[in-house]
Amino acid sequence: MSGLINFKTFTPHADERGVFAEIYRESWPTGVAPVQWNLVSSQPNVLRGFHVHVTHADYLMCVAGEMLLGLKDVRPESPTFGKVETHTLSEDKLAAAIIPPGIAHGFYFAKPAKHLYSVSHYWNMDDELGCRWDDPAIGISWGTKDPELSQRDQEAGSLEQMIGEFVKRRAALTTAKPS
Amino acid sequence: MSGLINFKTFTPHADERGVFAEIYRESWPTGVAPVQWNLVSSQPNVLRGFHVHVTHADYLMCVAGEMLLGLKDVRPESPTFGKVETHTLSEDKLAAAIIPPGIAHGFYFAKPAKHLYSVSHYWNMDDELGCRWDDPAIGISWGTKDPELSQRDQEAGSLEQMIGEFVKRRAALTTAKPS
Repeated sequence: MSGLINFKTFTPHADERGVFAEIYRESWPTGVAPVQWNLVSSQPNVLRGFHVHVTHADYLMCVAGEMLLGLKDVRPESPTFGKVETHTLSEDKLAAAIIPPGIAHGFYFAKPAKHLYSVSHYWNMDDELGCRWDDPAIGISWGTKDPELSQRDQEAGSLEQMIGEFVKRRAALTTAKPS
Repeated sequence: MSGLINFKTFTPHADERGVFAEIYRESWPTGVAPVQWNLVSSQPNVLRGFHVHVTHADYLMCVAGEMLLGLKDVRPESPTFGKVETHTLSEDKLAAAIIPPGIAHGFYFAKPAKHLYSVSHYWNMDDELGCRWDDPAIGISWGTKDPELSQRDQEAGSLEQMIGEFVKRRAALTTAKPS
């Protein structure tokens, strides 16, 4: 794939009753071995972001309605450092976005929606870094001016601060590993 | 639990943005170690069933709308052999039904709905046994007289035949095991 992340597409089977889709198999080379699955419903005009993880990968899909997925590479050593992408995930074109550590991401829901995701590591406060969704340095157009945010996302700092913290925590992780 | 199956209840976290729920953790004692996850949408008046598995367990929840889950114990040696139960699963009271081998099950969707389930073994044609949903011997009131069925479910045989086949295949599995 030439983009910032990989997508796992599915092969839904439709019949007169509805649609059946396998959305995860342990044997698929997704790169994510889930230890946890989460289901999230969002109200209209909700924005969740802008976040990045040091450790864990997300395997994420939209199972009802649709969502705008905004991505930015914040790994300074990466050839695509600073690059942004947006993708629309929807129940009608079911596919999983595989978001590795170091790819910052935000989700915007114009209408009510649900997303489902699995994670490669259990939730850990130390692996939750964020910045203001509207920091102009991000360079993503979310299609909203005044989204509903969590308290934490409202009070987040700048992209620059987030990248600095990401690099610091990642380095600490590497150092902490037994040699 | 005194019923035919166990349920895993969740602890959703609601805020101004919507609802977040952990729906599976590897560390939970669910008895199911999923190798596959499936997402299924159903049209109104769809009935899926009546099925039983010899090998695999299901970890199943309704993530949009609601479903009537009908259960019957078809393990002749079980103290609850022949017992039936019905449960309503819905997105509003999110919980996973854990359906072991030998508990026959059917799902009825009066309105459009979606369910999500994981399985302990990959799908295998040999582990798919079924009978007619309206065999009076089942003893479950589905609340419909003419549901939408798959071809396979339409052409299925009697409960008695299904139980006979279940017992035979289970015995074959046991015999096939290396001693």
